[in-house]
Amino acid sequence: MIILASASFARRSMLEAAGVAFTVDVAAVDEDAVKRSLRQETANPGRAAETLAELKAVRISARHPGMLVIGADQMLDYDGVWFDKPQSLDEARQQLITLRHHTHRLTSAVVVVRDGRRLWYHTEHAFLSMRNFSDAFLDAYLAQAGEAVLGSVGAYQLEGLGAQLFMTVEGDFFTVLGLPLLALLDFLRENGELIP
Amino acid sequence: MIILASASFARRSMLEAAGVAFTVDVAAVDEDAVKRSLRQETANPGRAAETLAELKAVRISARHPGMLVIGADQMLDYDGVWFDKPQSLDEARQQLITLRHHTHRLTSAVVVVRDGRRLWYHTEHAFLSMRNFSDAFLDAYLAQAGEAVLGSVGAYQLEGLGAQLFMTVEGDFFTVLGLPLLALLDFLRENGELIP
Repeated sequence: MIILASASFARRSMLEAAGVAFTVDVAAVDEDAVKRSLRQETANPGRAAETLAELKAVRISARHPGMLVIGADQMLDYDGVWFDKPQSLDEARQQLITLRHHTHRLTSAVVVVRDGRRLWYHTEHAFLSMRNFSDAFLDAYLAQAGEAVLGSVGAYQLEGLGAQLFMTVEGDFFTVLGLPLLALLDFLRENGELIP
Repeated sequence: MIILASASFARRSMLEAAGVAFTVDVAAVDEDAVKRSLRQETANPGRAAETLAELKAVRISARHPGMLVIGADQMLDYDGVWFDKPQSLDEARQQLITLRHHTHRLTSAVVVVRDGRRLWYHTEHAFLSMRNFSDAFLDAYLAQAGEAVLGSVGAYQLEGLGAQLFMTVEGDFFTVLGLPLLALLDFLRENGELIP
């Protein structure tokens, strides 16, 4: 049995669609606080994403002895700054103004833990270039997308209205959505959880 | 008003999710026959995809004077062979056996027509590498995915169970799904159909 230690709808949907059988169990982790603490230790968003993914999985692992627990995390960084999920529409607006007309990086990490021990991890990057949208567009975008933007670091969902924010997207499909799925499927196959 | 001249659920979903207002109107085009005829004229799948996309849009355009009509097409080629949608599960199996352990190319074209005249087009490629899956996997895949595979050239949907077929995917998110969405949004903005 596989446990997904993530509350993300996108991650759950990707794993389900790919035909993986799992259940969801999520730990309460103050991600922003952990990120701030990691920021003191490392300038590497990939390392931070791996650590957060592992932390989420390890917390859950104790409740599920012997089971594979999948943890995942996604970081957004631009110009040396790490972004958190916006707390308000005002903060979402500020994030989008900062990212406008620039290329930012998404880093998605996935970790598999069993009995509190990390068995495997994988990290991938994607690069997304926002266009130089108008303030009128930004107003309309926030009005139409609404509170849903607070669920995403960077205040957008590429698979939704957020597509209108972008010029180009470079990187793996699944990595952009927050889970390096193909690498994870490969690990699950090698561990006898999927037909090879 | 914008018309989408495609019956593809994936294309409609992408455009809707991106916040574009449109209606769907689809022409009856024997795509496989047109592809065979284009194959005589060109060895270029991109050119063929553009021609098919334009044909679909032009046929619809006459019914909608003055409106922008979006046509789209996707081609899959590998080793000089162009693939059609499989007609049966046996044919799906043959396609997957041919593509197994190799990298194939997807070409997605989008064309915008008004009053029968092509205003704009855009073509993008993606490269997908299938893993060397077992025959046991192939049996299980076809049994589980079922007739749904007949709806896709190559007999897979990357956003579904098809993810288990692949090692790596290189190319734009939307292009893989059959519509170079970001370029299309750019065209619609420049033509006053979306807020810039």
